[in-house]
Amino acid sequence: MATPDPIPPTIEWAGDRVRLIDQRRLPAELAFIEATTVEQLCAAISTLAVRGAPALGAAGAMGVALAHVQGRSRQQARDQLVATRPTAVNLAWGADLALAATDPVAEAVRIAVEDVDRNRRLGAFGAALVPEGGRVLTHCNAGGLACVGYGTAIGVIRAAHEQGRRPSVWVDETRPVLQGARLTAWELDRLGIPFVLVADVMAGSLMASNDVDLVVVGADRIAANGDVANKIGTYGLAVLAHHHGIPFYVAAPTSTIDPATPDGAAIEVERRDPAEVLAVAGVAIAPAGARAENRAFDVTPAALVTGYITEDGVTPPR
Amino acid sequence: MATPDPIPPTIEWAGDRVRLIDQRRLPAELAFIEATTVEQLCAAISTLAVRGAPALGAAGAMGVALAHVQGRSRQQARDQLVATRPTAVNLAWGADLALAATDPVAEAVRIAVEDVDRNRRLGAFGAALVPEGGRVLTHCNAGGLACVGYGTAIGVIRAAHEQGRRPSVWVDETRPVLQGARLTAWELDRLGIPFVLVADVMAGSLMASNDVDLVVVGADRIAANGDVANKIGTYGLAVLAHHHGIPFYVAAPTSTIDPATPDGAAIEVERRDPAEVLAVAGVAIAPAGARAENRAFDVTPAALVTGYITEDGVTPPR
Repeated sequence: MATPDPIPPTIEWAGDRVRLIDQRRLPAELAFIEATTVEQLCAAISTLAVRGAPALGAAGAMGVALAHVQGRSRQQARDQLVATRPTAVNLAWGADLALAATDPVAEAVRIAVEDVDRNRRLGAFGAALVPEGGRVLTHCNAGGLACVGYGTAIGVIRAAHEQGRRPSVWVDETRPVLQGARLTAWELDRLGIPFVLVADVMAGSLMASNDVDLVVVGADRIAANGDVANKIGTYGLAVLAHHHGIPFYVAAPTSTIDPATPDGAAIEVERRDPAEVLAVAGVAIAPAGARAENRAFDVTPAALVTGYITEDGVTPPR
Repeated sequence: MATPDPIPPTIEWAGDRVRLIDQRRLPAELAFIEATTVEQLCAAISTLAVRGAPALGAAGAMGVALAHVQGRSRQQARDQLVATRPTAVNLAWGADLALAATDPVAEAVRIAVEDVDRNRRLGAFGAALVPEGGRVLTHCNAGGLACVGYGTAIGVIRAAHEQGRRPSVWVDETRPVLQGARLTAWELDRLGIPFVLVADVMAGSLMASNDVDLVVVGADRIAANGDVANKIGTYGLAVLAHHHGIPFYVAAPTSTIDPATPDGAAIEVERRDPAEVLAVAGVAIAPAGARAENRAFDVTPAALVTGYITEDGVTPPR
């Protein structure tokens, strides 16, 4: 009998509504949102109650399904959903699949179920890259919470853990929204995988002192040439890993690869509200009136990627 | 007639006590501490009410002066002071000067006065490296608040500003203690120098998009071979600057150079309380019971430094 997953589904179809974990309230509390309209789902996406490229794929499909069961325009729902976050290609991928399906609800449920299966396959391929007792550094949250379940980068670590390889994890806190501290630490804690939280600035020091065996991150979009858009700070880690000769892997389902985007320069990088930088947990950290810039993602050139871990296997950059 | 400095002295001798800005309360409020005992001064240093290598030089001297006027052991005061922060060599430098002086009070006051003069000379040398309209990225706070006044890295920017070169500044927020967001932003705001605050993770993206002309940081200790200990995250910036061919300067008074430390490997890096990483502004950001590591400094090899800016001029690494 399978052990129940210690992390509930990030997002699921609940008959006539979409039920999702409110990730803004983690790690303090595990709370859920029930979105009964496309507008409510779009608000949940914009405010990062649900985030992570694979999870957004399911959210896009479920949003179109929601419009369908309510007799509203599926095309309009699709466009509203896709406009919420410009960088993650999976959002359009999921919405478009549900738009083209004869039964959008069945399609959305299929996408959600397949997400977990895909991540387990991806994790098994990636686990082989984690040495016995390997110390993995990860950034942001590419875990079950970024997907429907199991996770991509964390799926790799989780599979290694399940295989008895005893991995441990350096968790980048991931300013400004702190997805590492709030979400990745919460997941690893639930999974019983040892981890140590660090400020993002500590990665260079950890690599220089030989405390990192490999870096594994997720992706929000992979261009046709292999350039990777992911959470701001990923590029800096890739440069540091390259400088130290440490393997740098990108773990993402193939739905993250966008053949319509030739290279990183063609990826639109979302700018978010400067308020996310100017305050932490509601407390101002800078003088009143200070300006801030808040790029949500950066682009890592394919040349800095050691390999891509997908549900189909591990491939080096072309 | 000289314009009054918009930033009051960080630390000064006030007859029978040491008066210092309580930097823990910035930017919300400009408040002062009056330390009447060596123990109070040590507590101010440990809790980062006063910090920054050159300011700690003055603090070390004033602490010994305080013991002297109270008829207490100067040697014991020196040892107590030096034990508060292991990485900044200036603390021992200032304390030892006051210990050896016939009049420790006069020596402490001299060190404070000379700090500002030295930083103005350093700033003038460094300003010549800032191009017209130059966009400078800096980390942590190497400003007037890190010294008795004027600043080292910020002194360079300030001198360029005074010369009409119209520099602008990318301010790294500098987790975990946020000296960039709280202190550097506050100083630049008071000085009328344009700046934009960014999360530390954004530096790579800014460099990749050609938005950074040079990086200038301070130093807590410079080894005899030119390796530099400075705030955690400095090393990552140096690697990124090197990768992008962007000049990376270290601005520090010659008192920061420690001939007794042969290289970076010999520098003790202070580990601070993990609580600084686990909470921001008193709010927990990670699950209860999470472990964190908190290295306060990292070491940048001399090979990644374009030049050292001191009160004696600009020198390349040997």
